[in-house]
Amino acid sequence: MKFITTFIASLFLSTCLFAQNSDEGVIRQIYNVALMEGHTYKNLEHLCKQIGPRLSGSKNAQKAVDWSKRLMEDYGFDKVYLQEVMVPHWERGAKETAFIVDGTARIPVRIAALGGSIATSAEGVTAQIIEVKDFEQLKALGATVKGKIVFFNRPFDPRLFDTFDAYSGAVNQRGQGAVEAAKLGALGVIVRSMTNIIDDNPHTGGMRYQDGVSKIPAAAISTKAAELLSKKISEKGTAVKFYFKQYCRTLPDALSYNVIGEIRGSEKPENIITVGGHLDSWDLAEGAHDDGTGITQSIEVLRIFKSLNYQPKNTIRAVMFMNEENGLRGGAKYAELAKLNNEKHIAALESDEGGFTPRGFTVEDSPTALAHFSKWKPLLEPYKVSDIEAGGSGSDLGPLKTAVPGIVLIGFKPDSQRYFDIHHASSDVFENVNKRELELGAASIASMIYLIDKYGTK
Amino acid sequence: MKFITTFIASLFLSTCLFAQNSDEGVIRQIYNVALMEGHTYKNLEHLCKQIGPRLSGSKNAQKAVDWSKRLMEDYGFDKVYLQEVMVPHWERGAKETAFIVDGTARIPVRIAALGGSIATSAEGVTAQIIEVKDFEQLKALGATVKGKIVFFNRPFDPRLFDTFDAYSGAVNQRGQGAVEAAKLGALGVIVRSMTNIIDDNPHTGGMRYQDGVSKIPAAAISTKAAELLSKKISEKGTAVKFYFKQYCRTLPDALSYNVIGEIRGSEKPENIITVGGHLDSWDLAEGAHDDGTGITQSIEVLRIFKSLNYQPKNTIRAVMFMNEENGLRGGAKYAELAKLNNEKHIAALESDEGGFTPRGFTVEDSPTALAHFSKWKPLLEPYKVSDIEAGGSGSDLGPLKTAVPGIVLIGFKPDSQRYFDIHHASSDVFENVNKRELELGAASIASMIYLIDKYGTK
Repeated sequence: MKFITTFIASLFLSTCLFAQNSDEGVIRQIYNVALMEGHTYKNLEHLCKQIGPRLSGSKNAQKAVDWSKRLMEDYGFDKVYLQEVMVPHWERGAKETAFIVDGTARIPVRIAALGGSIATSAEGVTAQIIEVKDFEQLKALGATVKGKIVFFNRPFDPRLFDTFDAYSGAVNQRGQGAVEAAKLGALGVIVRSMTNIIDDNPHTGGMRYQDGVSKIPAAAISTKAAELLSKKISEKGTAVKFYFKQYCRTLPDALSYNVIGEIRGSEKPENIITVGGHLDSWDLAEGAHDDGTGITQSIEVLRIFKSLNYQPKNTIRAVMFMNEENGLRGGAKYAELAKLNNEKHIAALESDEGGFTPRGFTVEDSPTALAHFSKWKPLLEPYKVSDIEAGGSGSDLGPLKTAVPGIVLIGFKPDSQRYFDIHHASSDVFENVNKRELELGAASIASMIYLIDKYGTK
Repeated sequence: MKFITTFIASLFLSTCLFAQNSDEGVIRQIYNVALMEGHTYKNLEHLCKQIGPRLSGSKNAQKAVDWSKRLMEDYGFDKVYLQEVMVPHWERGAKETAFIVDGTARIPVRIAALGGSIATSAEGVTAQIIEVKDFEQLKALGATVKGKIVFFNRPFDPRLFDTFDAYSGAVNQRGQGAVEAAKLGALGVIVRSMTNIIDDNPHTGGMRYQDGVSKIPAAAISTKAAELLSKKISEKGTAVKFYFKQYCRTLPDALSYNVIGEIRGSEKPENIITVGGHLDSWDLAEGAHDDGTGITQSIEVLRIFKSLNYQPKNTIRAVMFMNEENGLRGGAKYAELAKLNNEKHIAALESDEGGFTPRGFTVEDSPTALAHFSKWKPLLEPYKVSDIEAGGSGSDLGPLKTAVPGIVLIGFKPDSQRYFDIHHASSDVFENVNKRELELGAASIASMIYLIDKYGTK
């Protein structure tokens, strides 16, 4: 029985520390709850396997709203409620078809329509395909682009340590490629998937059209197929054609919701600390890392506090933002209502970079808060989550910056190396989330929220 | 062409920095080679898929010796050679069978003989099974253990951040369990697999017998089956029996080899810096993380130096140790010969904790070296591999401590959270290694070896 005895003694020790309000003790307790009796993993399994893909406006998105609301009610949070928000409603329709047309050979390749794209005509698009690495190279081609398909094939820069930097350096092809190509008369665009790895999964993602520029269909192609296509073009030049057909459509905006759960502050209930992620996901997979992990971690923060009978001084809000992926309407609505209701937000933290091993936090545009938070590094070092750096927070939090002046925005930073392997692709499934990494993330975020609640942002 | 131009410009910039001998520049170049034209991933694929499991004394272990020798010769290292070493030769034989016997029901469960265990008799072992968490609890049972099977079921402590600490806290059941149970007259032992996760893979590993204590068969059981077995025992007590049958055997010691490649030092060729991993693996899987990653990273360190035309001042040795898993004979032989030949070793580093995202290095028993290395943290921080801490190095390096007084032993520390999911189990395969994580590890180790070569250990 030694193990059991030690175990109980250790928990008792933690309780004593907690009674003394030692920060080390409270943070130890937070980790103990997350690692020994955590709910993130089973909640994520439910979201991924019982609900699954949940693009804004879809039935599954509504199921995710209902589920997360009920879950927080079942946990007995002080207040659980919805915020209405109208969201874009885009559907992929039937599976896309695509071929590299090399003489009489038609080589099938895997593509996925980009979110927001129009369909092709019923016959699909067939045309010569020309490869470019960036918009400058495209513009230099000028009138020769007319009537062709443009293939954007700039890969991630592998030298960049943080893969989000590599993503930032490549993603304009996906977001703006169709507009730039259409300006020169292209018939469609094919974009290399936004990922570090070479595999056969197309990675979808948002794209935009622009008023006054004709809309042309846009799709992501797997990196493996992109390499093949590039090889064919380099070998055979203008003889290489491409065919693709896709069925996507944009329906009228749909009513959806942000889902919010609160623990009311014991001393300053009017002060709000938000912790959130986004509830919607792309349609190709389960949205496990993007952003099921952020959702389940945010709910877990409040659950851990309740489990420890920790009474926060300020009101702590878990916010499940709707429509991060293709509109950011939920984030905009949350900020709009915060302003309208004159809410006093002191800080907001988003977890939307996956459920990988936590490394630290980024603080957006606030050297004061950064310096203040940096003093907590010794408390976070035992859990190796003490990288406190200047940096962006999360897409959903952006609108709060102007809506609530003085708010401190924080990003949760897990290890970035594996994120784009699965980002927006069919491989973003529950099986690719590690239980301990997910739980450590929840504990890290809860510890940061605990410290902000206790010591403020400056 | 902007991307290509930028790319070439950037490489040129690195070359300029290298010419100036800026440490930042050299380390940047090391990472560029590892991330843009690295060989670790393809070498690991070969080792895992073309050779596979390679337990000491097996044909595959010899293939791994031949392959790694040839690989280093093909890279043109200055000297590539073998060190003869006699190793244990244990074989699993046919697949094990095991059942929980619950009345007339026989519930099949997955086990794997522990390395070094004897076989059961041809009929297998059937007996009542009693569960214990540790040796104290076992000893308290005294004579009641006689004629029974002992089930060691102490799980990893999930509160321990570093999973190697959890492993250390549980692994005596596997190593010493058979001896302790046999002292009390047990017929066999079944040990809960050494892992954090609940799944159906048994995780094998080494065990020992003791002179004067009878040898009884020992096997690991999957954690899922361990949970079921524990439940059955708690429900039905002494009525629960267990059956298992295994076929393993120990053959006479076999001739094998450590494989060594060197780049000769330009200033002090007699000074040796060793970087290594172990070439053998358990028989159940491909030994991808354990320790294919350490092998391919060690070879990559020398390959990167050659690729950069970097002439180390000291001789740099990549050492593929044989027989880490069930004997440590390769490590012992390497140390013995170092002493015999009066070699001047200044430092040795081992990578044997998997190919996960690098976090830093541990320095064994040398506060002076620890303080010296800690001054390099600013150079390692851009790559987030700056945790320089006191701690153990690697099993293969242990014998060097007494053989070569004054040597500084260093462990490479990747993130530990996922290691025991796959450790010694059939899931330790190439597919579970991430290319970027592996490459970052190689670059981190190469950077540390570069700094030691340039600035010494104190």
